[in-house]
Amino acid sequence: MEVVQVLRMNGGLGDTSYATNSLVQRKVISMTKPITEEAITQVYRSVDAIANRFCIAELGCSSGPNTLAVAAELLSIVHQLSRSHGRQLPEFQILLNDLPGNDFNSIFHSLLPQFRAQLNQQMGSKSAPCFVYGVPGSFYGRLFAANSLHFVHSSYSLMWLSKVPEGVEKWNKEEIYIGSRSLAPAINAYYNQFRQDFHTFLKCRSEEVVGGGAMVLTILGRKSDNAASKECCYIWELLALSLKEMVSEGAIEEEKLHSFNIPQYTPSPAEVRRSVEEEGSFAVTRLEATEIKWADCGGGSGGGYDVAKCMRSVAEPLLVEHFGESIIDELFEKYQRILTDRMSKEETKFVNVTVSLIRRG
Amino acid sequence: MEVVQVLRMNGGLGDTSYATNSLVQRKVISMTKPITEEAITQVYRSVDAIANRFCIAELGCSSGPNTLAVAAELLSIVHQLSRSHGRQLPEFQILLNDLPGNDFNSIFHSLLPQFRAQLNQQMGSKSAPCFVYGVPGSFYGRLFAANSLHFVHSSYSLMWLSKVPEGVEKWNKEEIYIGSRSLAPAINAYYNQFRQDFHTFLKCRSEEVVGGGAMVLTILGRKSDNAASKECCYIWELLALSLKEMVSEGAIEEEKLHSFNIPQYTPSPAEVRRSVEEEGSFAVTRLEATEIKWADCGGGSGGGYDVAKCMRSVAEPLLVEHFGESIIDELFEKYQRILTDRMSKEETKFVNVTVSLIRRG
Repeated sequence: MEVVQVLRMNGGLGDTSYATNSLVQRKVISMTKPITEEAITQVYRSVDAIANRFCIAELGCSSGPNTLAVAAELLSIVHQLSRSHGRQLPEFQILLNDLPGNDFNSIFHSLLPQFRAQLNQQMGSKSAPCFVYGVPGSFYGRLFAANSLHFVHSSYSLMWLSKVPEGVEKWNKEEIYIGSRSLAPAINAYYNQFRQDFHTFLKCRSEEVVGGGAMVLTILGRKSDNAASKECCYIWELLALSLKEMVSEGAIEEEKLHSFNIPQYTPSPAEVRRSVEEEGSFAVTRLEATEIKWADCGGGSGGGYDVAKCMRSVAEPLLVEHFGESIIDELFEKYQRILTDRMSKEETKFVNVTVSLIRRG
Repeated sequence: MEVVQVLRMNGGLGDTSYATNSLVQRKVISMTKPITEEAITQVYRSVDAIANRFCIAELGCSSGPNTLAVAAELLSIVHQLSRSHGRQLPEFQILLNDLPGNDFNSIFHSLLPQFRAQLNQQMGSKSAPCFVYGVPGSFYGRLFAANSLHFVHSSYSLMWLSKVPEGVEKWNKEEIYIGSRSLAPAINAYYNQFRQDFHTFLKCRSEEVVGGGAMVLTILGRKSDNAASKECCYIWELLALSLKEMVSEGAIEEEKLHSFNIPQYTPSPAEVRRSVEEEGSFAVTRLEATEIKWADCGGGSGGGYDVAKCMRSVAEPLLVEHFGESIIDELFEKYQRILTDRMSKEETKFVNVTVSLIRRG
């Protein structure tokens, strides 16, 4: 599977879907707010350049209500800090990155005017100039000028790999992500792809973030050391189960299921720390795992319907690419039924790994 | 009339139209190439920062084949200069600006991959990193960080005013731009709006362009000192004539025609120089007026059909906003007929004013 698919997942979730997805995002942003505040305060105190210009990048910005949410929060904090330190307000640059398939038009046309109106309301005429740019491209490559960023934020994007690990389908026939029936080489291949991608990510950012600059990254992950742990795999195992039902009904060829795997890895805090230390350019200042109940996924009843809708927004482009459009409705009906059943019997949660990093030197 | 209209002109010309329009643009880019080359060479020699980063802005970039054309040329020149001076290649930042209604998605999705492929082909693996961003907003306001730009290019955008001059309709009933039936206050109002807008433009850019940095601006203009000169007004007078025919046929209310004026001004070289000198931050290094025949507008026969098509791509959004969709086809049939007739009897030309500027200090 090539990057073009991840593109569609990472970027274009479509109008019908991100509303649900954005609820989870909003919860994550709110949960990680203290970490973000701490990091930006530290950057403000340590970086000289801020006197003139403060440059923030949002990686995997998507095009929904959360696209500019963290930027707005960061601006507000820097405004407060400048006021309390009696320092001049810097000019702000907000660099919104996502894959080239993201709907940047809708950011510029709809979200940006709202953001500016909100800014004017909050800060009044005292607000400093704030330049918002769209930056298309994969964050597994260089995106920004050397030594230009003061703060990088990314939420729910870095679990997406640059590609499905090569050869993984040989050892992962019954699963679509790591699961209880995955063979060891599949799990290794997934982890190695994550290590490689995350290393590349850190290396690229290390060239772009100024010394003393910070990154706050939230990644869908796990608490356990076991990559096949239920907390990160169960949601996909149940989708695999739904696909398997369709295989047994003859709606999907078995071979098609065997060759389908998603380009994702849900790391543990320890794996994130190890990668950061191996790469060496950043120091970990905070590393936390938090939980969100599946039941808190949606805006509605909180049952299988909401979770299925949420997962559909994420997985549909990948599924359509591989299996075609025609199976989707039935698949998600099955999935919803299975989810509702399991959620009534056990407490199921997503785990977020949040890491706060400072650029050394 | 508000900026929202200019937005649609400046930005979203639509797929059906820019192909024709882009032909004129391509001619202009090719005609001004020596000026661009001279300016970039001068910047390269005088600006230290280039050793690390070279930042180019394209203002009014639109979303067609010319969006990245000048940037590609500039990159190629800087590559050559670096090679011949034995200097390290800088990282490039290309900032593509247009109003928020511009189709940035299509730039990122279609044009950018082509641009990168071309770059790789031309420069091979020796190419320096090149970051391309979308910058939505009016260039009659700040768009970029202070002291961040080395080179600004704009072609066929700065004749668009920020708005129709206030009160102009009182003195401009029979015309839709300055024309032979415009009263003196209308002409003054148009010129004053240009002076004010161009001053704002220069002031904003003066904060953004580094000392020694350059701007090359091509503006649809005129050679004559007379703002009502035929060379810049005739094309619009003939459109006004077409609208008048429709008034006399009862298809358009007279009052509707009287209240329609386009937010454009076609300056003379002397007016451009005066504005630059009044604002004071930039020095004029070149100032030229060149001509393009109406007949060279299109890719086809070069007759009224092509010119009407070209003008339609520019004027249609404004006309639809004011008169509604229903009159458009008939209007442009009339316009084409009139254009064909006039072009068979006289040689008609557009005039481009190109100015090359260096940021003082």
